[in-house]
Amino acid sequence: MRAPAPARDDVAQAACMALERLRAKGPRVHCITNAVAQNFTANVLLALGCVPSMTLSPEEITGFVSGAQALLVNLGTFDAERRQATELAVKAASEKKIPWVLDPVFVDRSRPRADFARALSARGPNVVRLNRAEFSALADAEASPGAVKKYALSSKAVIGLSGEADLVTDGRQVATIANGHLLMSRVTAMGCAASAITAACLAVEPDGFRAATAGLLIIGVAGELAAEKAAGPGSFAVAIVDALYNLDAATLKARARVS
Amino acid sequence: MRAPAPARDDVAQAACMALERLRAKGPRVHCITNAVAQNFTANVLLALGCVPSMTLSPEEITGFVSGAQALLVNLGTFDAERRQATELAVKAASEKKIPWVLDPVFVDRSRPRADFARALSARGPNVVRLNRAEFSALADAEASPGAVKKYALSSKAVIGLSGEADLVTDGRQVATIANGHLLMSRVTAMGCAASAITAACLAVEPDGFRAATAGLLIIGVAGELAAEKAAGPGSFAVAIVDALYNLDAATLKARARVS
Amino acid sequence: MRAPAPARDDVAQAACMALERLRAKGPRVHCITNAVAQNFTANVLLALGCVPSMTLSPEEITGFVSGAQALLVNLGTFDAERRQATELAVKAASEKKIPWVLDPVFVDRSRPRADFARALSARGPNVVRLNRAEFSALADAEASPGAVKKYALSSKAVIGLSGEADLVTDGRQVATIANGHLLMSRVTAMGCAASAITAACLAVEPDGFRAATAGLLIIGVAGELAAEKAAGPGSFAVAIVDALYNLDAATLKARARVS
Repeated sequence: MRAPAPARDDVAQAACMALERLRAKGPRVHCITNAVAQNFTANVLLALGCVPSMTLSPEEITGFVSGAQALLVNLGTFDAERRQATELAVKAASEKKIPWVLDPVFVDRSRPRADFARALSARGPNVVRLNRAEFSALADAEASPGAVKKYALSSKAVIGLSGEADLVTDGRQVATIANGHLLMSRVTAMGCAASAITAACLAVEPDGFRAATAGLLIIGVAGELAAEKAAGPGSFAVAIVDALYNLDAATLKARARVS
Repeated sequence: MRAPAPARDDVAQAACMALERLRAKGPRVHCITNAVAQNFTANVLLALGCVPSMTLSPEEITGFVSGAQALLVNLGTFDAERRQATELAVKAASEKKIPWVLDPVFVDRSRPRADFARALSARGPNVVRLNRAEFSALADAEASPGAVKKYALSSKAVIGLSGEADLVTDGRQVATIANGHLLMSRVTAMGCAASAITAACLAVEPDGFRAATAGLLIIGVAGELAAEKAAGPGSFAVAIVDALYNLDAATLKARARVS
Repeated sequence: MRAPAPARDDVAQAACMALERLRAKGPRVHCITNAVAQNFTANVLLALGCVPSMTLSPEEITGFVSGAQALLVNLGTFDAERRQATELAVKAASEKKIPWVLDPVFVDRSRPRADFARALSARGPNVVRLNRAEFSALADAEASPGAVKKYALSSKAVIGLSGEADLVTDGRQVATIANGHLLMSRVTAMGCAASAITAACLAVEPDGFRAATAGLLIIGVAGELAAEKAAGPGSFAVAIVDALYNLDAATLKARARVS
């Protein structure tokens, strides 16, 4: 049984619509993210027209999340403050039906983090974005297309698996996105930014599969454009923010390598 | 009754003097600021010749503040650690007559933060720098020129209100600064940087009104220069640090749009 | 009695070998570092081909350090969380014979920090990298070549003293590295990055003296290359990451100013 691949044009079209809605609506995206990624994540979201917020304080995070249109939970800094913030944020998101993305950074390197991520993944994230090693730790299975689809079905989350080509699946539909550039692996917080953009797309696109493909396609194409101007990972990190800001639907469509 | 507007040349001249003194004296500026802004704030201050410090530790913050020439209190990360640090820092600043700036980030989004900011504003900040929404939350009034002047008088702080044009007032004098660029709103921590530069100016210019106009004029002109070289918000954030480093008095004076 | 200076070519050769091994092996480097430096440090290490990690969580830091090939302990943020993390990390490093670098940031500004650094320096860091003011506070002595050599001998750590020219000594051998650029003092976390690169070099070069000279030479030469392309400290911070990524052994050798 082979999952149907949505037509390339459908995925690209959804990404174009998401991009345009981000700019038109400027959604609020609340981010619980790691200390290394906070600044870059905020700048990536601002470049796309979003309004990021990052507070972790128990007195106010419920209010911030309740007033946001999407939530990102990134586990890259695994401290008590962020675990408490996550508890409150996911509760608020569930109550207000605010979509959220889980990014289980480095769960392959830490058992306590993997345990925490597994408990979180049972609380209904709309999308889980992660790399192959992280998937293996989270799902206790090799990151084969079949295993990823199975995990998506059982967890009821769309899985966005980053790699040389990205794989997105809700367990039924599968899309492969071949955009991106090797320099993306040489800049910290690039995966975190992909997850943040996916959260932003969820704020304007209720379908999780379309939002996740949009998020990964947008950052992949921006990465390719940035690489054309970059002399190394330093200038690449700058150029990808510019590329996200300048990206237009025609370029996104023309460059999309979706199958 | 109309508040007297200081001559354009006076404001520009004060900014030029502050800029030159920053480079000549290299003042220490202690910053309690949010996790997103810390790196950019330090780089902005270093570009102007200052020596930034950022510690929050209760064991040492009193010493750092006592040895600094100005203090910034930015509420962008509202955690217990920073609230304790703020308590100690403001106490040290008051005792040693060290001038300080309050930046009540996002008080319009969080009641506990607004309450904390109101208590702080009663402790004698020399300058409060904020945007219109934050002013409304802090002062419980629309951000009209009249209301801002009234709040400045009653709080005895100079108010630096950021917006399309910046408004600076001590309740008697009023200056409007029309410099700046739209890209400044697309880079995180730009307002935080404006507050940090204002704190730096207070280290070398005892008059709060002159220091606040100097700070906002310096970052506004640097923003315009940066925008001329930028391809988007990524390169803009880099270029504004270069522009601050390279800014000279003649350019500052020629570009100043003060009324 | 004059310490023997290793031939210039030996130091340059060791740096070339370290650089090539970093790229070939991609060692894991765990960094306890300050909030301001985390992002830049991660990007500098990634540019050289390393895999940085930054967690501070007591539940997992032992695992991260035990799985790393080198450890950096930077005291720039002196909070309870990092002190606990340091305790666990140094314990793990000692048990697993993982080399580590101590960077006692700002110990000249804070007595509690200096006390903590002194206790740490007794636990066997392979390298201590610091500036002259920090050395004076740590060693309670002026930073003369003689005093630095004496401190290196008594502490059994290689000392990497940053300054206009860098001095590296294990108490017997002494090398002076005259590479670098003034803009390095105008970008935050540049010393922290030097320490992180030194830690990375320790991951691939067991000799502490060779690793420390390699680390400081690599960042010094990269700084010179970056300065040639920079318009100020903003673009310099970007260009040095590119330069580290693009640096080749021939350039490193040709540019080395070691005596």
